[in-house]
Amino acid sequence: MACGVVAFGVGSYATSRLSQDISPVLERKPSGNRPSFKSQYADRDTMLKAVAEIRDILGDDAVSVDQDDLEEHGYSEWSTSNSDEVSAVVKVCARHKVPMIPYGAGSSVEGNFSSPYSGICIDLSGMQKIIAFHQDDMDVVVQAGVNWTNLNEEIKESGLFLPLDPSPTALIGGMVATNCSGTNALRYGTMKDYVVNLTVVLADGSIIKTRHRPRKTSAGYNLNSLFTGSEGTLGIVTEATLKLAIIPDSFSVATATFPTIRAAADAATKMIRSGVPLAALELMDDAQMGVVNKNGGAGGRMWGEKTTLFLKFSGTKDSVEDNVRLARHVAKALRCNTFEAATDQKEMDSLWAARKQALWASLAIRPEGTQIWSTDVAVPISRMAELILEASKERAEKLGLFTSVLGHVGDGNFHQMVMYDPRSPEQVQATKEYVEIMMEKAIEMEGTVSGEHGIGLGKKHCLLKELGPETIGLMKAMKNTLDPM
Amino acid sequence: MACGVVAFGVGSYATSRLSQDISPVLERKPSGNRPSFKSQYADRDTMLKAVAEIRDILGDDAVSVDQDDLEEHGYSEWSTSNSDEVSAVVKVCARHKVPMIPYGAGSSVEGNFSSPYSGICIDLSGMQKIIAFHQDDMDVVVQAGVNWTNLNEEIKESGLFLPLDPSPTALIGGMVATNCSGTNALRYGTMKDYVVNLTVVLADGSIIKTRHRPRKTSAGYNLNSLFTGSEGTLGIVTEATLKLAIIPDSFSVATATFPTIRAAADAATKMIRSGVPLAALELMDDAQMGVVNKNGGAGGRMWGEKTTLFLKFSGTKDSVEDNVRLARHVAKALRCNTFEAATDQKEMDSLWAARKQALWASLAIRPEGTQIWSTDVAVPISRMAELILEASKERAEKLGLFTSVLGHVGDGNFHQMVMYDPRSPEQVQATKEYVEIMMEKAIEMEGTVSGEHGIGLGKKHCLLKELGPETIGLMKAMKNTLDPM
Repeated sequence: MACGVVAFGVGSYATSRLSQDISPVLERKPSGNRPSFKSQYADRDTMLKAVAEIRDILGDDAVSVDQDDLEEHGYSEWSTSNSDEVSAVVKVCARHKVPMIPYGAGSSVEGNFSSPYSGICIDLSGMQKIIAFHQDDMDVVVQAGVNWTNLNEEIKESGLFLPLDPSPTALIGGMVATNCSGTNALRYGTMKDYVVNLTVVLADGSIIKTRHRPRKTSAGYNLNSLFTGSEGTLGIVTEATLKLAIIPDSFSVATATFPTIRAAADAATKMIRSGVPLAALELMDDAQMGVVNKNGGAGGRMWGEKTTLFLKFSGTKDSVEDNVRLARHVAKALRCNTFEAATDQKEMDSLWAARKQALWASLAIRPEGTQIWSTDVAVPISRMAELILEASKERAEKLGLFTSVLGHVGDGNFHQMVMYDPRSPEQVQATKEYVEIMMEKAIEMEGTVSGEHGIGLGKKHCLLKELGPETIGLMKAMKNTLDPM
Repeated sequence: MACGVVAFGVGSYATSRLSQDISPVLERKPSGNRPSFKSQYADRDTMLKAVAEIRDILGDDAVSVDQDDLEEHGYSEWSTSNSDEVSAVVKVCARHKVPMIPYGAGSSVEGNFSSPYSGICIDLSGMQKIIAFHQDDMDVVVQAGVNWTNLNEEIKESGLFLPLDPSPTALIGGMVATNCSGTNALRYGTMKDYVVNLTVVLADGSIIKTRHRPRKTSAGYNLNSLFTGSEGTLGIVTEATLKLAIIPDSFSVATATFPTIRAAADAATKMIRSGVPLAALELMDDAQMGVVNKNGGAGGRMWGEKTTLFLKFSGTKDSVEDNVRLARHVAKALRCNTFEAATDQKEMDSLWAARKQALWASLAIRPEGTQIWSTDVAVPISRMAELILEASKERAEKLGLFTSVLGHVGDGNFHQMVMYDPRSPEQVQATKEYVEIMMEKAIEMEGTVSGEHGIGLGKKHCLLKELGPETIGLMKAMKNTLDPM
């Protein structure tokens, strides 16, 4: 039993409005939104016919139209160990013009798996096989439903790992779809940097493999990067060969506090420019540190409520020590308030705990019934402090919103957690306005509305603003080539 | 004066049959090949009409139909400081169905700028402006004709550099077009990893910018990677914003010799797996070391004629020393014959000299009139020794060809230098056969026919074998969408 199909998926944007790390666990609930049936696609009767055909091919257990399944986002388990059965389902859907929505962990946050025109949800979360592990080539071939933390657990004896760091629940297919990253991106890059090849079922049901298995190539168009980040809109990724990295011998963690966001952001830039090799460089503002304290602290201690940089180091034992020394030197020269470096594993865990638990702390301390909206803008690094301060902190105060900042500052990408009460039309309105302005400012600053979560339905209108009609026109032409319906 | 147009380009595969590093300087000569005029494209009279129209737009000096220009590959200098004039030329060509061939340094080696159906060669080598250098954001905006060594010279005071390492003559546009790399790829990746955004003139003359300027993004389809490596077939790159990396504080170099290629390749794999951070990991076989000696040595010394690994280290002073120690430990454990590490800059230059001068040595010692064919396969690392030995060394001996190996072994990518006399039909035949078999074996081993040089005209037939008709079909559909003619 490997993947699943749901007729009439109703996954909606509203059900997935939280940050990647938290929404699947805490916020999944049925939405009242009902999909419409758009005229160019199948009507309800035709969809039922398609469902019957898929039942014939895959058997009764493979398909669900159960209301609970549908309300959650719609799926049941069905069987395939390869891409052929996905292809069979797609062919039926294509013939009947039934919209298809690939589905994995459901942990994306921008309505990436919504089905605004109804359709059939193809759930790949059952495709959990590690097909081949080539230790000597430092790659692994996996099905789309493999969970990345399970994968890393499975292969850890080899000294290799997949160095992405999205939501712990994320599955490979979705990680490819959103070009995910996380705190490790500064050192290791994003998902696109780990894709050696993909097996993709196209919109007509044909199956392609983007490439062979070389680590480096200049042969033909880069279809890997075309599908990576395409959010399931160009085809359904069923298998991936992924590069692996070496698990470093040694790690360390340090934190440095600064009087202002600007001072911290400047220090982050200078730290990178100084050539200190960092494994991660994260920022939390005073509000976010306050949230951690309000939740009882983290790592067995309370924290100074100052803007804090979290630094991670990795490498050989000696080079890690060397790099911590260098980072301390740079931070001190930039007049940090405090600089703490871990001297053993316990201190390391303790220092990183505040960063690790930040999202959970935000969720835990919010008043009952409130929700958290997480932005995901990324700008050229030199503009980050300005964006956080002007577009963000000041404006939030004016609008009466509580916000806090959690940033992958080494990449100029940060998340603003906006707390709001969905029962208050004023707060919903203020939050929406706030998020829109953040995105507009990011675009003005030559940035992007999405550093790592993708566009989904939630930010479609912004993508047009960001890229302009010509570039969007080209993207549409490509979409139309790969999926003419 | 910024770029150039040539009517009736006759650049042919035969003129560019040498390695990227050497062909432009030593091997450029007119080819006897004359292009054909294919029925779907403009005939000679229509082309002349297009040329006249371009003259009207850009002035007489901008266009050349001079025989010398044409024979070299066809170009003259004309003026533009932005993409608008390229767009104007493209619009005229599109209206008259005149094939267009973008041209940069002419240092590609697979017929990438051939014009089999005649047409107009658009030379971007005059577009040499560094448009903006954003030190704080660690990026630079450049025109397509900027030479990468000039760029690095220009910005070196900032402590930043573009860490690609192709032919010293290469220009940014061509580097994007072939997704170039070189000896630094192990540590820094390939060109696609440095593209923040591209300005591209499409086949109809419209101008798009792929993205804003964030270092990280998940917004929309990855057009950067689509154009990078597309060899000018999807549009003409006129400008690029490129990520820069930090120039390391400190470097070192070591060499290790091994009794066999297999032993060296195994050591290379184990070196990487051991987690020693290497800046480069190159392999030269006994034959290639012999070539260096035959040319009088390199770095002021003669060399052991054994398969040799060249290791480069970079980072902080302490970490470099640490890493050299580790590498020595690993190499010794794997029974290397010798391990030499540089202790100062002079020794470093001396040790790296054999690697650096390898291609020039091959050219210098070849008998007069002979040429060198450089293959560019890449395979999963574990298969590399097998490919070199079985498909390569043995077969070359059987065919009576002198070959030597120069490998980016950390990426499983290597170049086989095949020496042949173009006046001998037997040798030409044997070389072609040999190269074909190499490529077929690489494909059998899940590899690629091109690790870094691209496909051009030279390897078109192999790309079909490598990727299969479905995947090529998708690539063709995309080509057809972006450039329907």
